[in-house]
Amino acid sequence: MTFDPTKLVNPLLLKIKPYQPGKPIAECQRELGRQEFIKLASNENPLLPSPLLIKQLITTISDLSLYPDSNGFELKNALSAFLKLSVDQIILGNGSEDVLRMVIQAFMWADKQILIPEFAFAAYKILAQGLGVAIKEVPAQQFGMDLEAMLKAITSKTGMIIFANPNNPTGTYVDKQALLSFLEKIPSNILVVCDEAYYEYMTEHDYPQTINLLARFANLFITRTFSKAYGLAGLRIGYGMGNASVIALMNRIRQPFNTNHLAQVAATLALADQARIKQCIQLNECGKQQLTQGLAQLNLSFLPCHGNFVSVEIKMPNVKVFEALLAQGIIIRPLAPYGMEDYFRITIGTSQQNAACLQALETILKKEKVV
Amino acid sequence: MTFDPTKLVNPLLLKIKPYQPGKPIAECQRELGRQEFIKLASNENPLLPSPLLIKQLITTISDLSLYPDSNGFELKNALSAFLKLSVDQIILGNGSEDVLRMVIQAFMWADKQILIPEFAFAAYKILAQGLGVAIKEVPAQQFGMDLEAMLKAITSKTGMIIFANPNNPTGTYVDKQALLSFLEKIPSNILVVCDEAYYEYMTEHDYPQTINLLARFANLFITRTFSKAYGLAGLRIGYGMGNASVIALMNRIRQPFNTNHLAQVAATLALADQARIKQCIQLNECGKQQLTQGLAQLNLSFLPCHGNFVSVEIKMPNVKVFEALLAQGIIIRPLAPYGMEDYFRITIGTSQQNAACLQALETILKKEKVV
Repeated sequence: MTFDPTKLVNPLLLKIKPYQPGKPIAECQRELGRQEFIKLASNENPLLPSPLLIKQLITTISDLSLYPDSNGFELKNALSAFLKLSVDQIILGNGSEDVLRMVIQAFMWADKQILIPEFAFAAYKILAQGLGVAIKEVPAQQFGMDLEAMLKAITSKTGMIIFANPNNPTGTYVDKQALLSFLEKIPSNILVVCDEAYYEYMTEHDYPQTINLLARFANLFITRTFSKAYGLAGLRIGYGMGNASVIALMNRIRQPFNTNHLAQVAATLALADQARIKQCIQLNECGKQQLTQGLAQLNLSFLPCHGNFVSVEIKMPNVKVFEALLAQGIIIRPLAPYGMEDYFRITIGTSQQNAACLQALETILKKEKVV
Repeated sequence: MTFDPTKLVNPLLLKIKPYQPGKPIAECQRELGRQEFIKLASNENPLLPSPLLIKQLITTISDLSLYPDSNGFELKNALSAFLKLSVDQIILGNGSEDVLRMVIQAFMWADKQILIPEFAFAAYKILAQGLGVAIKEVPAQQFGMDLEAMLKAITSKTGMIIFANPNNPTGTYVDKQALLSFLEKIPSNILVVCDEAYYEYMTEHDYPQTINLLARFANLFITRTFSKAYGLAGLRIGYGMGNASVIALMNRIRQPFNTNHLAQVAATLALADQARIKQCIQLNECGKQQLTQGLAQLNLSFLPCHGNFVSVEIKMPNVKVFEALLAQGIIIRPLAPYGMEDYFRITIGTSQQNAACLQALETILKKEKVV
């Protein structure tokens, strides 16, 4: 018998278009033989974790030969106090993607389907396909989730709705009123998963405080992360919040040591330092101004800028912009994998990084005579 | 409509008996109000990572706000050189449990079944049940895998065989000859997953070098970890090795950032320091002598000691031994969850830890008049 693993593998896996992460700096250095790169490709925090956090983290490094606390006692208690939720309403994950996988794996089975909006974060589809779960994509309206169309798309097979608020990569968001009226119309046997990865960056007054809705909507589930405003993407830590009975069921499939010890410690420290978060938000607000004004001056259109990134329209092929910017030491994210061939996404960086990016863009636009 | 998540969840999940990790030291401190505990409950390395490793790791801490390298370039290249395998035969995981989940998730679908031996590491069953995959447990022979019975249990539905070599918690292992003849008899459409978490501790001359069999058996898949001899359990990093086409298919469902940055760095450093591994193995061999001799002097029976642990028979209830030892500051693992009501497992520690454990056991045996 010859060995052909493609005949043994779940055929649904063969349909997955693998996720393309932002190009890592080290990879660019190896491939281009250049040392200096500015990475504005993965919506990371341009500020490093605070020196105090690093100092405190270093003191815990000696514990590494022991398994992490499977229950994440310290971090869950810190989150519980900070979010005013009970500990049993919180689940920790190896990044919020791990939490999203768990909620899909636990609740989507047989022929249940997941609804997602068009232009949703690519991970939802990949996670579902990897678990053999069907996904239905509902067309967007001006790049944003079309709430009416989502409601109309619900069938007896719908088991879950997943969306990000604000959405990555389009920057659109559902406001307080719209979200409330949306939730009111969704049957309680459908789990509504709201990915708030960019929550901390949302300064808009009509952005919903979804946690306050958990008491009213038992079918609401929220994910957040320490990878963005908290600046701990390298350590992998995120969390989910929901009804305690939902969390208890998810814990059955959670890998006992899914979150590492240093991530638990660092997240606990980062959560306690809200002054640092304010500083990050402030930097982001300034960068938002700087980037959007700069893009406007270059006569480039862009989608609404909410979160820590902006998606820019450009009349030249995605890959060409990417490569031209890369040659100037700037790593951005082409949005072709989202079917947005004319768009690329820039993460808001420090003012120097933003300026360098705008400068590089100007050079390219002149050279390519795009404008 | 009332909200009842137990009616929404995959019914197979309700059958899972959740994994009971070793009791963490901090939890014991909180519950018992005592500061000093010796944890011999989770087969961790009693030696901390080397001071040099810690020093080097600290220098990379500033990178934490960036996502880890999704491809694990440095670590996979280091493993490739060390193991003499090509990079595309290696996949990294958030602990080897993550790798095991991926191989099950990718290849077990529809009504395919997994064969495991009785007394297999509890995680296999939990992972399979969590993914809705049926498990068939084949009775053991003297606590070890019964190879003949395993072969006889194969049916047209069998898609995978998973076993640990050596097995945790029984310490039994399949030798070179037996493994070879076993593999020769297994149809190539069945994946054979060999969990070698304790590989580095195996000094027995007839223990198989399974990696050498990968070229011959394309359906062979091996997992290893940095959590045991390499002493990095707290950071979560393990890896799988197999046919490049199997690895490629698994990468489709791997979370892009499943392994954290510090784990990748620490594992690369730890792999380069083989002198340290030799030191750990030596310490373990001495501890093995000390513990088994001590147990024999206490007239306690124990299972064959291979790896970094020993499972001890005791004629008193599991929980009672556990609590009595805990009261003396020693954390061990009762084996009731394995249906081994009369057994508990001790991790081999430093000579001081082993001596303290033997001393505490002697006290209990005298007090309870077990012997």
